[in-house]
Amino acid sequence: MPRHVRIVEVGPRDGLQNEKAMVSTADKIELIDRLSATGLQSIEATSFVSPRWVPQLADATEVFTGITRRPGVHYPVLVPNEKGYERAREAGVEEIAVFTAASEAFNQRNINASIDESLQRFAPVLERARGDGVRVRGYVSTVLGCPYQGEVPLADVVRVARQLHGMGCYEISLGDTIGVGTPGKARAMLQAVAGEVPLNALAVHFHDTYGQALANLLACLEVGVSVVDASVAGTGGCPYATGASGNVATEDVVYMLHGLGIETGVDLARLADTGRWLAGRLGRETGSRVGRALAVS
Amino acid sequence: MPRHVRIVEVGPRDGLQNEKAMVSTADKIELIDRLSATGLQSIEATSFVSPRWVPQLADATEVFTGITRRPGVHYPVLVPNEKGYERAREAGVEEIAVFTAASEAFNQRNINASIDESLQRFAPVLERARGDGVRVRGYVSTVLGCPYQGEVPLADVVRVARQLHGMGCYEISLGDTIGVGTPGKARAMLQAVAGEVPLNALAVHFHDTYGQALANLLACLEVGVSVVDASVAGTGGCPYATGASGNVATEDVVYMLHGLGIETGVDLARLADTGRWLAGRLGRETGSRVGRALAVS
Repeated sequence: MPRHVRIVEVGPRDGLQNEKAMVSTADKIELIDRLSATGLQSIEATSFVSPRWVPQLADATEVFTGITRRPGVHYPVLVPNEKGYERAREAGVEEIAVFTAASEAFNQRNINASIDESLQRFAPVLERARGDGVRVRGYVSTVLGCPYQGEVPLADVVRVARQLHGMGCYEISLGDTIGVGTPGKARAMLQAVAGEVPLNALAVHFHDTYGQALANLLACLEVGVSVVDASVAGTGGCPYATGASGNVATEDVVYMLHGLGIETGVDLARLADTGRWLAGRLGRETGSRVGRALAVS
Repeated sequence: MPRHVRIVEVGPRDGLQNEKAMVSTADKIELIDRLSATGLQSIEATSFVSPRWVPQLADATEVFTGITRRPGVHYPVLVPNEKGYERAREAGVEEIAVFTAASEAFNQRNINASIDESLQRFAPVLERARGDGVRVRGYVSTVLGCPYQGEVPLADVVRVARQLHGMGCYEISLGDTIGVGTPGKARAMLQAVAGEVPLNALAVHFHDTYGQALANLLACLEVGVSVVDASVAGTGGCPYATGASGNVATEDVVYMLHGLGIETGVDLARLADTGRWLAGRLGRETGSRVGRALAVS
């Protein structure tokens, strides 16, 4: 198991994008600044996707230019295409993320493109990023199952991860988008990808839809992964099963890691406090069990 | 990892005992009969504790004599003393469970006795059970932390488990009563106890207060434990942190085990259905993430 884990906090983007309640631009800025004060080193700040697609994140420029960037903290943003890349760069972005799926059916339904077509669309973005010295993180979603095609062949996960890495992504985040995976499958998937992409260039991204996220994470830590995506207060829900749980809560991940003696650099009490503050803004209970337990203990 | 896991369903006793909402005697009987129809082989039915202590379970005799006992299914009941043992036997009970803690402070606060005194109180019950051919299960609570004394020395957990086993308990359930444990500590605790009590006489009992239950369970499965306590719909709450989560949900445990290729003999769809029915009776959302996901998917 690793001695240190870097957490990539995805609440401000992946989390808020999938919440029904709208959060004001000022609150988004406050959220990110609170998160960076907890010791988190990577915070996905927003998405420069078309506001017509994701109205929740139409204020990407205002958010990104409004936050107080803390030295040493990375603030990647999601970028779907060259137009998004240009908007992001104008806002001062220095790290981006691109997103595809290991499932053909998911890509077709989501962006009306095959896996290969979606990778081709990224190519000019990745080329410009390289020229600009902008780091690129790659997301591969539906790595353990797809809401449209069900099973996703392991070979497709490996191929997409390898291609994103070959195209210049410094890190590939492997996402169980619908949270159906269990530890044995998560471990086998990670091991298969690690056969083609260096393990230290891989991250795992679990959803807690079926309550399996921490068990899956434990299985992957045992393989040696040391970068973990998580969302404060478990924000996000599951767009494919409305009412179900979404992203694993950062608080719960940090609690487990610290219990395992793994360093994160994150102040858990401060993080839980931020999670409860955010849940209040969203008008719902926190999705973090640690957040709830610390609040009432 | 084991190929088969036996689940001990504790919802009707441990679960309902710690729920605020009262459930009618008829509903308790229906719950147990629904649970036995899912394929569960062990269902803790009720507690023959004094009704003054636990008014929720004052109908122990009516419940136990009202259920339809399915051949091959065990229906242990909790028994605190000889008086409870006699009431249980009059109701036709064939298996009992006794309860103590590895924490001195917990025993003092809970039953005004030291650990050794609590074990001495069981002695006549265990002796009568042996004479009557009644199987006895032993619970050791607070194995990974105590709400009163904090840390619980591993040596105390081992000693209490060994003594219960020596007094004739065929199985010792090791309980993280307040859910504070993490996988490395859970594994170390189980390994320490397994040094003194045969592993096949041990069960694990996790609470999901901090969201760690399935990860802890995974760590213990890797040690080889093959008996797991769980509570349908995650019933139970945490009496030491009102509002926090309680017992790990049986549905979530079964989902993980089946995903790992481990047999349980339980029909998950039917179990989740029972969990949602029970949550409806309790007037709250199910505490099982699997139950929620299956309901909306």
